[in-house]
Formats: sequence, structure tokens, C-alpha cells
Amino acid sequence: MASSPANDAPWRLIDEVEFGRDVAVHSFTNLYGCRIGDETRIGPFVEIQRGVAVGPRCKIQSHTFICTGVVIEEDVFVGHGVMFINDRYPRATTSAGDLKSDADWKLEPTTVERGAAIGSGAVVLGGLRIGAGALVGAGAVVTRDVAAGSIVTGNPAREHRPSNPS
Amino acid sequence: MASSPANDAPWRLIDEVEFGRDVAVHSFTNLYGCRIGDETRIGPFVEIQRGVAVGPRCKIQSHTFICTGVVIEEDVFVGHGVMFINDRYPRATTSAGDLKSDADWKLEPTTVERGAAIGSGAVVLGGLRIGAGALVGAGAVVTRDVAAGSIVTGNPAREHRPSNPS
Amino acid sequence: MASSPANDAPWRLIDEVEFGRDVAVHSFTNLYGCRIGDETRIGPFVEIQRGVAVGPRCKIQSHTFICTGVVIEEDVFVGHGVMFINDRYPRATTSAGDLKSDADWKLEPTTVERGAAIGSGAVVLGGLRIGAGALVGAGAVVTRDVAAGSIVTGNPAREHRPSNPS
Repeated sequence: MASSPANDAPWRLIDEVEFGRDVAVHSFTNLYGCRIGDETRIGPFVEIQRGVAVGPRCKIQSHTFICTGVVIEEDVFVGHGVMFINDRYPRATTSAGDLKSDADWKLEPTTVERGAAIGSGAVVLGGLRIGAGALVGAGAVVTRDVAAGSIVTGNPAREHRPSNPS
Repeated sequence: MASSPANDAPWRLIDEVEFGRDVAVHSFTNLYGCRIGDETRIGPFVEIQRGVAVGPRCKIQSHTFICTGVVIEEDVFVGHGVMFINDRYPRATTSAGDLKSDADWKLEPTTVERGAAIGSGAVVLGGLRIGAGALVGAGAVVTRDVAAGSIVTGNPAREHRPSNPS
Repeated sequence: MASSPANDAPWRLIDEVEFGRDVAVHSFTNLYGCRIGDETRIGPFVEIQRGVAVGPRCKIQSHTFICTGVVIEEDVFVGHGVMFINDRYPRATTSAGDLKSDADWKLEPTTVERGAAIGSGAVVLGGLRIGAGALVGAGAVVTRDVAAGSIVTGNPAREHRPSNPS
């Protein structure tokens, strides 16, 4: 599509990406093998890996990393500096001392359901589901599923109960 | 000013930025509509948004994001990978299903007072004041004001009481 | 060495780096004055500072910052968005009000021993040793030494005791 983001803009690496209409991709980005839905906006310093699907009308903010195995539905906000994970026990090398390859680990897929929001600096472990409309607080480390409509904060992330009603 | 950083250096996006004297801006940066004071240094992979004011003699380290609504006074250290926030309840879209625009949210401004230091990996929520000379520990998630001269750590950040005097 | 990464690839800053054989360095990287061992892979949006030594067969993932004073042995995994630290009390300026220089602070060196893995979003304070084969959980803030073979999580990081055996 003529109007899609492409490598002719300054300092973007875009390789085999399927764009919907009116997608905006900032400079200093590395996207490959993924799908980005209509009207979604991708900030600077973002990497999105092969196989990721991002729905329409999402905001993926700066400094965020979205790994293979992540599905982001429509109307999702992903804040700045959010790190997704797909490997529970990462290692550089196999027990035999070779660099790990795609055959040497188990992918743990994660889904972020429609309308959810993930605060800046959050870390989302693999194999999880973040329910529709949920809010993950800034800096939270998400180690369990998050129920639809709930708010979680902290490390590890727990259901949020304000300690100070002010 | 002839000696100011500009887009002719490799891989910087600098748009409508007002620089003091002897400012250093590294490559891989995205600065727009902000003011940067004398002798301040900006590391790589940094974004500073419209309306931000950074005082003189500050260090803004790599991978840090400073959003609209943040004021950083003089002599402030902002570590690596620090994320500021200006929106308490971020969403990608309005309840009507449209992408949120500037009219659809309430800006919560934050001030970092003179001589404060914010450790690497910290997350600073919106609407806060970090007092003069305060130290925010690395990885802290700041959800309340920080008193001048105090040290806060943890998630959420609390006044620091060393558990081990060694 | 003819096959080593160099500045002729798109958008990399590589200055006085000593590479082993078969090193891969992605775009959007800033490496200077460091050594990188055989077969090690460096992701995008990574900065590695002067004096750092990274061993062979390591993976340094995207958005990670490795500061002066860090030694990473062989077969180490460093996840995405990991921040190392070498200065316990960072400040922008000296008490005399001058910008701090190399003479105005005490470097606290850190070693990550062979086969360790550091999860994404972790923050590692200075002056520490992360033992061989240890696993630092995603989002952990490491403030003490980590014993070889152990698993630590949380902020501050503590030995991990699963609360749910499933």
C-alpha cells in the first residue's frame, strides 16, 4: 500500500510487516514479520518481532519490546518501556554449550485483550492473558493472568487496593 | 545558535528545541518542542516531548523518556531507562471507540526539583513533586511526592530504611 | 577483521570495539571501548560503555544498557531493557556545583558469572556479583550479591520461593 510506513522514512527497519490503513510508525523502530492493525500508532525505539499481531486503534509507546508469541487485540494501550517475555527460563546457551536456537526453548504466548492498558515500565511474563479493559499499573511485573476489568500493581503484580483514599 | 545540536549530526531528530549553551545531545534521540538548559547532557535513545523544560547542568541518561508536563530544574540527574508518566488512566481509545486525542485526557504535571537524582529504571507517575536533593532509588516506582533530601526505594517507593547497616 | 560489525551497517555507532569471531550487532546500537566475545549477539537499542568485557556465546537483548565496570562472563543471557549501574549515589553535579567528571565518583564494578541469566526489565546495582548459573527474574531490582545457581525475584530481589507450586 503506497501510504504504508516503509524504510524510506528516516531510520526505520521495517521488514515483511503487514499494515492496516493509517498506521503511524515513528523513527528508530525495528518491526519484522508482524501485523499492525488500522490506525495503530507505534512510537520510537520500539521493536516488534516476528509473528506478533497488534490490533486496530492501539498505541504502542516508545521504548517498548513486543516479542514473538504476543497477540494484542484492538484498542489496547501499551505504555513506554514495556517489556514482554515469552521464555520462562531464558539461557544464552543449551546445556551442551551451544547458542540456543529456535528449537531449544518453549514459546509461552501472551494475549492482551481489547481495551486493556499496560502502564509504562511494566514487565509482562510469558504464557499470560491480560483481560479486556484491565489496567496494569506502571512498573508492575505481571506474573499471573489479569482478570478483565481489574487493576493490578506492584512486583509481583497484585489486585490493586488503594492504601490511601485521598 | 551555530554550536547547538542539530539534525546534521548522525541520527537525531531535533525539532523546535531551545538549547542553552554547551548542550550535548547524543545520537538516536528524539527531542521536540522542549527547552534544554546550559551544559546539560542528553544520552542516546532518549525522547523528550513538547513542553518539557530541563534546567542547566542536568544529566539525562540513555533510554529515558520525559513526557509533556515534566519540569526538571537545575543540577538534576536522571538515570538510564527512567520513564515519566503524565496520564493516570491511560487508554488507547475513548469510550466512544475513537483514538484518544489531546482533548481526551487530563495532564498531570510533575516537577523534579534542583539537585535531585533519579536512579536507573525508575518509573515516576504523574502529578508528583520530587523534592530538592532527593534520591529516587534505582527501579523505584514513585507514586507519591518525595520529600526534599529524602531517599525512596521500592515498588511502590517508600522512604528508605536500610535493613543492613553494612 | 573483515567480517566484524562496523559502522558501514545501518545506524550503528561502533568505536574502538574489540570483536571476537562471528559476533552479531544489530542496528541502533552504541558500543565503544569494549570487548565482545566470539558468537555473542547484541540486539537493537543497546549501549555498551568503555571498559566493559562481554564473554563468548552471550545474548545481550534489545534496550539494554551495560555501563563501565561490568564484566559479563561466557554463556550469559541478558534480557531486554536491563539496566546496569556503577554509581551508588549518582548526582549531576558536585557539591561545588560543577558537572561531575570521572574524578568525582567511585566506580562500583559488577561481575555476571558464566551461564547466568538476567530477566528482562531487571535493574542491577553496582558493586555486585551474580553467581554462575543464577537466574535473576524479570523486573527484579538486584541490590545484593546473587549466589551461584540461585533464583532471585522482586524489588528488592530476594531468593525466590514459589508461593504457588502449580
